[in-house]
Amino acid sequence: MNRSANQKMNIRKEEIYRVATRLFREKGYNATGMRDIALEVGVEAASLYNHIRSKSELLQQCCFRMAGDFSRQLEEQEQRNSALALEKLEAVLRFHIRAWINRLDEVLVATHEGKYLEEPWLTEFMQERRRYMKRIEHIIIQGMDHGHIRRAEPYPIMLTIMSTVRGIEFWHRKQQEVSATDLEDGLVDVIIRGLLPIPSYHRS
Amino acid sequence: MNRSANQKMNIRKEEIYRVATRLFREKGYNATGMRDIALEVGVEAASLYNHIRSKSELLQQCCFRMAGDFSRQLEEQEQRNSALALEKLEAVLRFHIRAWINRLDEVLVATHEGKYLEEPWLTEFMQERRRYMKRIEHIIIQGMDHGHIRRAEPYPIMLTIMSTVRGIEFWHRKQQEVSATDLEDGLVDVIIRGLLPIPSYHRS
Repeated sequence: MNRSANQKMNIRKEEIYRVATRLFREKGYNATGMRDIALEVGVEAASLYNHIRSKSELLQQCCFRMAGDFSRQLEEQEQRNSALALEKLEAVLRFHIRAWINRLDEVLVATHEGKYLEEPWLTEFMQERRRYMKRIEHIIIQGMDHGHIRRAEPYPIMLTIMSTVRGIEFWHRKQQEVSATDLEDGLVDVIIRGLLPIPSYHRS
Repeated sequence: MNRSANQKMNIRKEEIYRVATRLFREKGYNATGMRDIALEVGVEAASLYNHIRSKSELLQQCCFRMAGDFSRQLEEQEQRNSALALEKLEAVLRFHIRAWINRLDEVLVATHEGKYLEEPWLTEFMQERRRYMKRIEHIIIQGMDHGHIRRAEPYPIMLTIMSTVRGIEFWHRKQQEVSATDLEDGLVDVIIRGLLPIPSYHRS
């Protein structure tokens, strides 16, 4: 195949991926058929198989593409030796937020539909997610050891960093009212301030 | 029908609801059939219709039961006139966290599968969610007006309060390592501290 035909194949493959990811989000992975994907792409269902092997492959592509991107950026932060742990966490949080602002279909599918991966992909994906969460916990513990993150159970802090982005799904329906920048800064502020080693707040 | 037969009907109806909610979570609403529900309850599919009208009714029940419980507890907080806004928000957050700890199937189905409600229920549910989020924003603004929550865009703060619980889904797979109480206190601490009117933290 010549270069141009190859490029066309790649463009079509990426288009199938985009359409499938959107449908998995809208209808759920289990309720989406290859026929639905073909209809939206505008080809016969049979011709999809020139580009991909199965519906499952499309879910794999989504989950592992996201996992890879998230893991690579976390590695970048881990290697910033001169940065404080709090700065690393802020950068990780901003990366998460931007992914939920700019790549909502993909993050939602990886987050909610990943459980429908076939084996061995399911186990690999779950392990990768656990490793990712452990690596974030590790940065939190470093920050506590250096005294610029308050001493506390690191696990709930990690969970908060992982999940604060989830509300961004609501924001997409009303983004005209709050800008992406204000959203990002606002979310970061709550979480990062919440990690500072300040005295306990008063409770009634 | 006598009282005891009536009670039995209610118990069976509640059992169908529990099974359906679990299956909607595990397989997704669209991929769950009445046949799947009947199989797990241990009855013929046809006899389910003695208890409920449709699969859609079960999803409605889940979404509006959760919405009702959440709305009622928020109202309780709104009516605590002597409490600080921050104390009301803490109570709301603890209620959210406990729901995600104790009623995971129901909150996950209401959160992820609610979009598959039929009209007019879908519109009603979405409106109820928007109203709920507005009411939380209102408490945040009250706290800012009284000076015990720092001035900031209230919308991202509300989103953080709404979504920090989502990570609890991960915790359920490893709850033996962190107790429910430590989880709750840890999550509350990050968010509530993040709202205090302290000077800005340093950034590099």
